[in-house]
Amino acid sequence: MNQDDLRKLLEDVRQGRVNIEEATNKLTDLPYEDLAFARVDHQRELRVGFPEVILGQGKTAEQICKIAERILAHSHNLLISRTSEEVFHQVLTIAPEAEFNKEARMISVLRDRTERGAGGIAVISAGTSDIPVAEEAALTATAMGNQVTRIYDVGVAGIHRLFRAREEFAAARVIIVVAGMEGALPSVVGGLVAVPVIAVPTSIGYGASFGGVAALLGMLNSCASNVAVVNIDNGFGAGFVASLINRKEHR
Amino acid sequence: MNQDDLRKLLEDVRQGRVNIEEATNKLTDLPYEDLAFARVDHQRELRVGFPEVILGQGKTAEQICKIAERILAHSHNLLISRTSEEVFHQVLTIAPEAEFNKEARMISVLRDRTERGAGGIAVISAGTSDIPVAEEAALTATAMGNQVTRIYDVGVAGIHRLFRAREEFAAARVIIVVAGMEGALPSVVGGLVAVPVIAVPTSIGYGASFGGVAALLGMLNSCASNVAVVNIDNGFGAGFVASLINRKEHR
Amino acid sequence: MNQDDLRKLLEDVRQGRVNIEEATNKLTDLPYEDLAFARVDHQRELRVGFPEVILGQGKTAEQICKIAERILAHSHNLLISRTSEEVFHQVLTIAPEAEFNKEARMISVLRDRTERGAGGIAVISAGTSDIPVAEEAALTATAMGNQVTRIYDVGVAGIHRLFRAREEFAAARVIIVVAGMEGALPSVVGGLVAVPVIAVPTSIGYGASFGGVAALLGMLNSCASNVAVVNIDNGFGAGFVASLINRKEHR
Amino acid sequence: MNQDDLRKLLEDVRQGRVNIEEATNKLTDLPYEDLAFARVDHQRELRVGFPEVILGQGKTAEQICKIAERILAHSHNLLISRTSEEVFHQVLTIAPEAEFNKEARMISVLRDRTERGAGGIAVISAGTSDIPVAEEAALTATAMGNQVTRIYDVGVAGIHRLFRAREEFAAARVIIVVAGMEGALPSVVGGLVAVPVIAVPTSIGYGASFGGVAALLGMLNSCASNVAVVNIDNGFGAGFVASLINRKEHR
Amino acid sequence: MNQDDLRKLLEDVRQGRVNIEEATNKLTDLPYEDLAFARVDHQRELRVGFPEVILGQGKTAEQICKIAERILAHSHNLLISRTSEEVFHQVLTIAPEAEFNKEARMISVLRDRTERGAGGIAVISAGTSDIPVAEEAALTATAMGNQVTRIYDVGVAGIHRLFRAREEFAAARVIIVVAGMEGALPSVVGGLVAVPVIAVPTSIGYGASFGGVAALLGMLNSCASNVAVVNIDNGFGAGFVASLINRKEHR
Amino acid sequence: MNQDDLRKLLEDVRQGRVNIEEATNKLTDLPYEDLAFARVDHQRELRVGFPEVILGQGKTAEQICKIAERILAHSHNLLISRTSEEVFHQVLTIAPEAEFNKEARMISVLRDRTERGAGGIAVISAGTSDIPVAEEAALTATAMGNQVTRIYDVGVAGIHRLFRAREEFAAARVIIVVAGMEGALPSVVGGLVAVPVIAVPTSIGYGASFGGVAALLGMLNSCASNVAVVNIDNGFGAGFVASLINRKEHR
Amino acid sequence: MNQDDLRKLLEDVRQGRVNIEEATNKLTDLPYEDLAFARVDHQRELRVGFPEVILGQGKTAEQICKIAERILAHSHNLLISRTSEEVFHQVLTIAPEAEFNKEARMISVLRDRTERGAGGIAVISAGTSDIPVAEEAALTATAMGNQVTRIYDVGVAGIHRLFRAREEFAAARVIIVVAGMEGALPSVVGGLVAVPVIAVPTSIGYGASFGGVAALLGMLNSCASNVAVVNIDNGFGAGFVASLINRKEHR
Amino acid sequence: MNQDDLRKLLEDVRQGRVNIEEATNKLTDLPYEDLAFARVDHQRELRVGFPEVILGQGKTAEQICKIAERILAHSHNLLISRTSEEVFHQVLTIAPEAEFNKEARMISVLRDRTERGAGGIAVISAGTSDIPVAEEAALTATAMGNQVTRIYDVGVAGIHRLFRAREEFAAARVIIVVAGMEGALPSVVGGLVAVPVIAVPTSIGYGASFGGVAALLGMLNSCASNVAVVNIDNGFGAGFVASLINRKEHR
Repeated sequence: MNQDDLRKLLEDVRQGRVNIEEATNKLTDLPYEDLAFARVDHQRELRVGFPEVILGQGKTAEQICKIAERILAHSHNLLISRTSEEVFHQVLTIAPEAEFNKEARMISVLRDRTERGAGGIAVISAGTSDIPVAEEAALTATAMGNQVTRIYDVGVAGIHRLFRAREEFAAARVIIVVAGMEGALPSVVGGLVAVPVIAVPTSIGYGASFGGVAALLGMLNSCASNVAVVNIDNGFGAGFVASLINRKEHR
Repeated sequence: MNQDDLRKLLEDVRQGRVNIEEATNKLTDLPYEDLAFARVDHQRELRVGFPEVILGQGKTAEQICKIAERILAHSHNLLISRTSEEVFHQVLTIAPEAEFNKEARMISVLRDRTERGAGGIAVISAGTSDIPVAEEAALTATAMGNQVTRIYDVGVAGIHRLFRAREEFAAARVIIVVAGMEGALPSVVGGLVAVPVIAVPTSIGYGASFGGVAALLGMLNSCASNVAVVNIDNGFGAGFVASLINRKEHR
Repeated sequence: MNQDDLRKLLEDVRQGRVNIEEATNKLTDLPYEDLAFARVDHQRELRVGFPEVILGQGKTAEQICKIAERILAHSHNLLISRTSEEVFHQVLTIAPEAEFNKEARMISVLRDRTERGAGGIAVISAGTSDIPVAEEAALTATAMGNQVTRIYDVGVAGIHRLFRAREEFAAARVIIVVAGMEGALPSVVGGLVAVPVIAVPTSIGYGASFGGVAALLGMLNSCASNVAVVNIDNGFGAGFVASLINRKEHR
Repeated sequence: MNQDDLRKLLEDVRQGRVNIEEATNKLTDLPYEDLAFARVDHQRELRVGFPEVILGQGKTAEQICKIAERILAHSHNLLISRTSEEVFHQVLTIAPEAEFNKEARMISVLRDRTERGAGGIAVISAGTSDIPVAEEAALTATAMGNQVTRIYDVGVAGIHRLFRAREEFAAARVIIVVAGMEGALPSVVGGLVAVPVIAVPTSIGYGASFGGVAALLGMLNSCASNVAVVNIDNGFGAGFVASLINRKEHR
Repeated sequence: MNQDDLRKLLEDVRQGRVNIEEATNKLTDLPYEDLAFARVDHQRELRVGFPEVILGQGKTAEQICKIAERILAHSHNLLISRTSEEVFHQVLTIAPEAEFNKEARMISVLRDRTERGAGGIAVISAGTSDIPVAEEAALTATAMGNQVTRIYDVGVAGIHRLFRAREEFAAARVIIVVAGMEGALPSVVGGLVAVPVIAVPTSIGYGASFGGVAALLGMLNSCASNVAVVNIDNGFGAGFVASLINRKEHR
Repeated sequence: MNQDDLRKLLEDVRQGRVNIEEATNKLTDLPYEDLAFARVDHQRELRVGFPEVILGQGKTAEQICKIAERILAHSHNLLISRTSEEVFHQVLTIAPEAEFNKEARMISVLRDRTERGAGGIAVISAGTSDIPVAEEAALTATAMGNQVTRIYDVGVAGIHRLFRAREEFAAARVIIVVAGMEGALPSVVGGLVAVPVIAVPTSIGYGASFGGVAALLGMLNSCASNVAVVNIDNGFGAGFVASLINRKEHR
Repeated sequence: MNQDDLRKLLEDVRQGRVNIEEATNKLTDLPYEDLAFARVDHQRELRVGFPEVILGQGKTAEQICKIAERILAHSHNLLISRTSEEVFHQVLTIAPEAEFNKEARMISVLRDRTERGAGGIAVISAGTSDIPVAEEAALTATAMGNQVTRIYDVGVAGIHRLFRAREEFAAARVIIVVAGMEGALPSVVGGLVAVPVIAVPTSIGYGASFGGVAALLGMLNSCASNVAVVNIDNGFGAGFVASLINRKEHR
Repeated sequence: MNQDDLRKLLEDVRQGRVNIEEATNKLTDLPYEDLAFARVDHQRELRVGFPEVILGQGKTAEQICKIAERILAHSHNLLISRTSEEVFHQVLTIAPEAEFNKEARMISVLRDRTERGAGGIAVISAGTSDIPVAEEAALTATAMGNQVTRIYDVGVAGIHRLFRAREEFAAARVIIVVAGMEGALPSVVGGLVAVPVIAVPTSIGYGASFGGVAALLGMLNSCASNVAVVNIDNGFGAGFVASLINRKEHR
């Protein structure tokens, strides 16, 4: 029930076309209808620049395609994360403009490419093996209308590489830092800038890295105060939060 | 806004005392008001026999007393868990009929003692040291209008003790089993009955009991299919769930 | 040895047909025989509506079929959980009425479909990927004679979806909530109803979900007091406990 | 060495007042001096609105006072977190305008109260016991020049309380959500808004809450994509990151 | 009901003094009575040399004394573990011959000192700080009628100390090895002998010893095949198992 | 160098066939040679009834065969654990009398079948899926000269099955109990007997069983004092320790 | 920019060929250029004997070959760890003198074989299955110019084997000890020598070895004070650190 | 038994003063006597510059004093770690030249102050709160005859502080890095130098630092290959290993 429906119901009450008991019953159910309004609002919000996203992992190609079809009916842009080339070929049949990024395992449909960021977003990765997660973050931020700068392979054990790239990330409005192993890079980057740093631990490493737990703990315990953390390998989440932080107009 | 308020508003619309735009605005806010209705419903639900509960831990005596006062204004019964004798003395000043159970560290105000259970609730504990948690469960169930049978110190290493008490718990509609250390008792009890068993791990033990984790894992992995688990030392939660299970009329 | 056997033995003693030493020996063994009685009782209990269940995981098709055959000789209904289509084809040879649910990986033989629930059971799942576990719970509850309502894909990040479905679960006597990732749904549902909620964490998620541990901990620490928890992915256990809670007559 | 110093040195070289070898030596040390520039820049950055912060925990009153004195010589504002009333009395002797917030255990010296936020910051807490951490976040954000709205005690088990407060947080540019136990609140809040949510797990809970680990995992696995997380009980960090996100001009 | 009671009942049936229905009822209860036999058997077993034991931890002095009194009425020997000097003074009033070992925090009443071991028991400890747990094991084994050899402070980092003591433990029928930190001693001892080794991890250590977990894991993963493990700090359990292993006649 | 070699060397010294410096050098190496004696002693020890064992896991078929060949040159019996049929076929070429147990994944060469046990060993398993580990234990004990009684599928959720089998395990000198899931069976068995119980947790289970950790913790925290534990799935270790406990003559 | 470049720039300033503003800008960038100096120094350092290393794991054959090519352009030696025969064949096309060690999964190009160690390095391994990690350490140390002694299969359960090999490792300047399971070997070795011991836990084991965690904890808690630890299975790291310790001239 | 004793024994055999059987017996015991030789060697080793150390934690003042007295009878230097001022006053009575370092909680007796290091040792700490552990390391290294440079409070979030101090640690032969929280400092330092880095995690931090586990994991997963790790808070161990690495002559 939208506001027009509501006005119409009230008009009907005033006109006597609907009696009060009936209207009372209808409106007692309203909370859920009203929350449905909220949903529409939210969708509008998303439509003005933020793509709907499907987490591909754990869904069949059929399920993904059906959801994708429904979203693309109302939305310009779409991201499918943690997916495969096989799914991509099926998605192509419903969205021929879809693109597939093999490294990030991401399908994107970007019909609306309006720029929406107040500044730029830098995506920094520690090692070569962290790049797939970094790409997931970078693609998400791009799809959400941001200028993205990629600075890869600047891990803390060769800290001068990071310093040489400093100019590139110094101008960013928000920085995403992707690192596995000891996850120390966000602390170092965080200490060099005065903008929010979104840290993404990756599952890269072996032995006592415990599939990314060492990096995650390192980032949560960062001695730099401007670091917030997302889940292990959650490049998409980092790109999403960073995009919200960077939005020119937040409503 | 309750249903009477709503009817009055609609009447006002019909009478022209309130115009449609005004009513629309008011009703657009309704979800939250409506959810407030739900809250009133819920309170009614609780008032018909289930006490409001204050988790004493982490609250000052002053905070507890203020909340208690507000609850007792609208509610017959009240439980305060994980509290102290010192708090009890302060509560006495606002509820002279309050009682304190030292072992369970629980204050109860029970003005309404209607019986509400369809059957009985048995509370079984493995060791002597588990009794405080068992008492918390038993007191909660009692406060919620149930007949409670206590069967204590019947741990699995002397399984005959449990068997001798079998008649006592065989008749229960739901059984609460409280155990620390290896937490095996719920599995054994669960295998002997055809009613739901609510298992409560306790932090009793040492070394590799890890403050109740060993017992918790034992219960979660129970080979008896009729066992569900609550948090470590959560006697109150077990008593609460068991009472809901045992309710004569569930609505 | 049943009561008739016992009476006959005593008669034989009285008649001198059996001497006292012999009878003493026989009766000293009795506990186990007596517990065998209990087993017979238990089987009767189960026969009056609750299926015997075989956990398929870790058993060969041959083992499963032999056990199934033995159960079906004395029992109307049978469930085989965590099994495969391959096993199903073998089971068909001994129980042609068997059905296989691919999603839940469950085989069911339901010759007795008497309704045994006092009310309905609602099965709520957070995400699309949680559906297999939810289906395991729903099928179990159905097999045990309950009316089951399925409400899927209503996770907390779009809470209005849950609210819109509220009417569907508001009437249930017991609610099963299945969720992976942060496992927050049982707390929200628990806060909206006054019936027991059986929470099932799933292994759905990645990174710091640790194969369901995050969801499990979330549920054990639920701030809603009417939530009890079963093992990760244990849809069967949830369906079983919920069915016992919902039984019209518990003995 | 700042740019003026550098220019002066080069002028001296040109004028012959400093010979080349001498200048080479001075400039070879420059990296560190240059990094000192960066430090000066950073201090300037901080001076224009962001307080220096001392983590009180693990430092003696003497150590804290000495550091505070040095900071206040060059800086307008100062925060001391995780400290005590005893330290406060010592700090008063060097900064008579210092204030102490007992609940948040925080000392603040706020000589510069310029507003620097682009929008408002909402701080939402789940339970009464989470308030100290929420206050730490709120005070930090206030000290950094933000308008802060506090919405406390709106945990997910009584979700209508959150909804009723929705208008209060709907307008915020960034939201801090503080929760212990199952840590589900950030997911629910995140699903209702289109701004970044900084989640703070607290150590509130018992048993399987493991000192905040359950809440932490819940937040890291949030199914809402706009949630980033800081360390357990790290109210200061959340307030700091939120302030950076909300800054009118980020450089 | 013991066998004599049973014979008498059967005699009564034969004589017609008890009718069959009455006897049937009595015997239907028998399982539990029969299990009580088992209990009596067990007590007899224990009386012939093995003391009853009270775990003092988590019990009040009053509770301990009441249980002690009941045990000493039927039993010669008694051990109270994890207790205090204060409890000892109360126990003295009911058992003046009681002795207290401060280091092992153990009270013992040993009226029957018959030797029951087939061979000797050696108790080896790695460090000085492990001695309290080693003493708990040694006292338990002594109380159960064994000759005990103590070999303390022979940790693996000075392996020659162990070798020099080899003769002392070479003759034992079973060896208890107590170690904290890395818990390596049982593996080394196990490799030198052909008798069972009972390993006891202690909570001695710091940092990544995690209260004995490192030692526990070391012992569970021992490359010596003759090592079995008990709980962290469970000297009593080790002494008990070792005594059962060493018993001259095991029934 | 064995004692005979040593005596011969001393004789040579006495006869002047070897001068003192030469002998000194030879004997200075003696510690290691002497320890080799110990090794020879140990081998003798093993030869008198205990098989050498090769852990097959992590070794190539070639490595296993070479080691097997060397052992069989000096030893009558041999066990190869955690191996495969493929390895078995290679072993057959060097030991045609070798046998392969598929379930336990064990190869055994048993040329010496002397009985060496003082009593019997009972191997009890909780579930059908625990049988491979139980068989590993049983085969090991058999190979080491013991009479073994197998009692399988008597888990605690149907405790009467265990009781009915009580006579079978009541006579054992030592009992091995194998269980996955909650690992409660050793506690129950331990409470029924007065002999040592060696508990073997298995990795059977799912979700919060964590590959056997739940069972392991349950067993380490057993409230029965006669339980000692070996590593998860370590059937061989349990069989080995039990055999040492049961040895007629321990030296 | 090196010192010569700097002198030239200053000369240009003095000569008026470069104006001050220009020079200021150039020198403000200097820190990063200066750190580039450091990089060149570091490369020189490495060129004088220490190979560049590529961690093969998580990189494609193409990526590895490109990096290898770039390194070999400036460097004599190269190691590629955790790689495969397939990669080796590709590397051969750019470095025909490359060698592949199958066991250690390592490719090495060693054009410069200058000896650089002050003493020898001993690599000791506990079991046969630990040899691949031990070989990775040994090959790394060899590639870095050290004399390496291998002492394999001398685990603590047969401690005499270690002792017999004592002479071989007694002369080493630094010892690498590789062990899985309980990880006790470094403590024993550490107690026998007065040189640094680098301990490498391996993931060898099963059950409660938790993929090397048991060994790791054992080594971290070593009661020998001369033991330092690297990550699980990190043979390369151990070889690298040991080589640095053993370097004749450390700068 | 030393070589002279051995020669004498052989002479006695040759002369017929000792018969062969007697000599055989004596020499069969030799291994342990020989290992005693090793012990004497080891003591000599230690006497030439390395102090004996007593771990104070878990020992009474009396125990510490007795051990200290025995050590000082044969040794010049002595360290007592993790001790208290109270113990110090007792130690003064037996060693008036003893000194107490309050911050490191260490007592030292340094009669022999010979310099034994080949180069210097740098001790770097991340935060102010890490200083006690850093001091423990520094004092140990000093006591073992090394020149120690302290560089404190140079954590990675203000990386320029570290760089400014680079000259101070660039010359060291070995570097100890002490850090809590995320433990990233050793990686950064390791990347800047070509000498071994001994990393010491501290228990400084809160929340997800888990008493030093986050720092420990960060260090074990360091992407710098020249980092080895000791136990949490083990400043002594780090100082000890670093001293062995730095020894001029290692034998």
